Amino acid sequence: MRSAPEDCNMTSPAGFKAAGVSAGIKSKGRKDIALVFSDFPASITGVFTTNRVQAAPVLLCKKNIAAGIGRAVLVNSGYANACTGSRGASDALDMTRTAARLLHVPPRTVFVCSTGTIGVPLPMDRIRKGIALAVRQLSPDGGHDAAVAIMTTDTHPKRACKRVQIDGRSITIAGIAKGSGMISPNMATMLAIITTDAKVAPAPLRNCLACAVNESFNRITVDGDMSTNDTVLFMANGAAGGAPIRPGSASWKLFQSAVSAVAMELAMMIVRDGEGATKLVSVTVKGASDTLSAEKAARAVACSLLVKTSWYGADPNWGRIICAVGYSGARIDPDLIDIAFNDNLVVSRGRAASCADADLRAILSAREFSVTINLGLGKASRTIHTCDCSEEYVRINASYMT
Amino acid sequence: MRSAPEDCNMTSPAGFKAAGVSAGIKSKGRKDIALVFSDFPASITGVFTTNRVQAAPVLLCKKNIAAGIGRAVLVNSGYANACTGSRGASDALDMTRTAARLLHVPPRTVFVCSTGTIGVPLPMDRIRKGIALAVRQLSPDGGHDAAVAIMTTDTHPKRACKRVQIDGRSITIAGIAKGSGMISPNMATMLAIITTDAKVAPAPLRNCLACAVNESFNRITVDGDMSTNDTVLFMANGAAGGAPIRPGSASWKLFQSAVSAVAMELAMMIVRDGEGATKLVSVTVKGASDTLSAEKAARAVACSLLVKTSWYGADPNWGRIICAVGYSGARIDPDLIDIAFNDNLVVSRGRAASCADADLRAILSAREFSVTINLGLGKASRTIHTCDCSEEYVRINASYMT
Repeated sequence: MRSAPEDCNMTSPAGFKAAGVSAGIKSKGRKDIALVFSDFPASITGVFTTNRVQAAPVLLCKKNIAAGIGRAVLVNSGYANACTGSRGASDALDMTRTAARLLHVPPRTVFVCSTGTIGVPLPMDRIRKGIALAVRQLSPDGGHDAAVAIMTTDTHPKRACKRVQIDGRSITIAGIAKGSGMISPNMATMLAIITTDAKVAPAPLRNCLACAVNESFNRITVDGDMSTNDTVLFMANGAAGGAPIRPGSASWKLFQSAVSAVAMELAMMIVRDGEGATKLVSVTVKGASDTLSAEKAARAVACSLLVKTSWYGADPNWGRIICAVGYSGARIDPDLIDIAFNDNLVVSRGRAASCADADLRAILSAREFSVTINLGLGKASRTIHTCDCSEEYVRINASYMT
Repeated sequence: MRSAPEDCNMTSPAGFKAAGVSAGIKSKGRKDIALVFSDFPASITGVFTTNRVQAAPVLLCKKNIAAGIGRAVLVNSGYANACTGSRGASDALDMTRTAARLLHVPPRTVFVCSTGTIGVPLPMDRIRKGIALAVRQLSPDGGHDAAVAIMTTDTHPKRACKRVQIDGRSITIAGIAKGSGMISPNMATMLAIITTDAKVAPAPLRNCLACAVNESFNRITVDGDMSTNDTVLFMANGAAGGAPIRPGSASWKLFQSAVSAVAMELAMMIVRDGEGATKLVSVTVKGASDTLSAEKAARAVACSLLVKTSWYGADPNWGRIICAVGYSGARIDPDLIDIAFNDNLVVSRGRAASCADADLRAILSAREFSVTINLGLGKASRTIHTCDCSEEYVRINASYMT
């Protein structure tokens, strides 16, 4: 498996085109409509927010994705089309129909995503013109523009790409993603679109994506808020040729591993670009009696505002970490807990271990570090990737209308 | 029931003395040892943190409180005596013994609390000297000093007092509290000591405190972090005379109501003084199908970092509120939800209601406002009191070693 060369982007898999244009939804001429198109009918699958409040485009995607066939993914940024009632539902449908007509494909094969402010109706006149412009600009070189057009508070476009040799053919898997606030495990205000030219049937494609999302987008948190619009879509158009890749084969393992790697790379980009974040922190809980306990403890630490602000201050404050483990609901024995920053043990069996404060300050001043909590009870473990919380997070969110 | 006059403090109930002294635990000569003493054996009860990691003084209090008899409460601020192992346990015991010897009371009637940095052993030499000084300074006028001595990041001492006429006698209930960070429902880094001269047996006193705490300290949140040291202690020494007040009587209702009022007043002082807080916000969820759903939805909104930062920015961002309701786990139908800031409806049946943005900005710019969410499903309701989240919260917690 090779990492993406500089020029590898989401249109690198054969048979995909993309575009990113400005429809005047966002201010200052920023790009706000993205379109990804497959020259051939592709297998498509998706994973969506588990929030009980779901945006109109999410509901529409969920309705159409069961058929498993996709030709295009259409995204607008600026407004979320959430809490917009029956008008929102008909606007989402209108978007798919407008694109379908211009692309000469069935409306049910166009999947739509929206991201931005909740509760504001879409400016459909501008969006329809934007869709027409995006269709005209579709190009094998449009991947970068599409990645830019889905951004909201992101500071840079996020893309990842892997190439693998499977059964003598070069298979490419590529993706774009957006998201930096309202990010929590179990999907967040994040969108990701992954494309591949591999030939895979819809059902195994669904399992493949579920597996990749579970180990990547569901293992990150920025602020613990899960959004109404989270969507990951995955299209496999078979343009690389060859027989379908089937689960259980050696080829499948290569394919799954490459898809998971692309998802993980995009997920880590989201955490690194967390609103106001200055540090990426990987929190691992091991030695847990069961996986749920490991998960609860790792999430409590990764989501604790007191812990995240202490990291921002490069403060090796393990008291807040053990406190979060204590209220997490995980099965623990306080007298068995070890805690380390990178490899430096700061807590041994529930009490302060002797280690140089200067070393710890140096670790916590770096842009990336890990926190490992050993509960000393069993063999289960879980890692959650998170970021610190700075004054800049507050500033961004005190002024941005989501 | 009359509110506290200016000079009413925790030693206003008959037969209580208090002191607050500097033992040199905290810097700059700040007071750091508080002592509250009852001239007579008092009924005592307590409510403690539900964190699985519990400080040594919490464990010691829980062991001794079952007997229901108390003479003194001793508090040090500066260090939490949590995660300090067997040394921490023997230090807590040493504190009670030192005070008991000087006060000529059994050690098991002295209850100890600690608050401050986790994981650092107590400076026992200084603490022993501080206890001796506090015993010498015990006075009916020492209530204010005691309230000051338990502070950590609090910006001011917190005290409340009520007087009620029960069975022809004047009964006084008074309390002090500390806490402004690591504050979450179900107890937080908060301590409160409540005194009364009413005569009440230990068992009904326990029910009375449980009821008061459940409606006050368990209904507030600052940052969602539950601490290792939370303690509320309540002493009733009977110095006002008369027969014991018994549950079920009209007198009991008056008494319970006054105790609940003191607890509520202290709890609201804690939220108002939340680290970096500029606003007090009461979040009410009503129309829920069941109390647990109301509780989950209210807590999700009151704890959401995105919601709290939007309040700081006086941003009437209801999208983040409905989003938090959606992921709270509460039973909801998105199309039935109403949301109001004070009396201004902003969401009606899941969609934007028309209201003037300028009015909303004015409401959200005030120091106090309410958010009411009607789920439209049933009759259950719950209120959680919270505060906004400012850059100052991040600054305080990036530099303070808890």
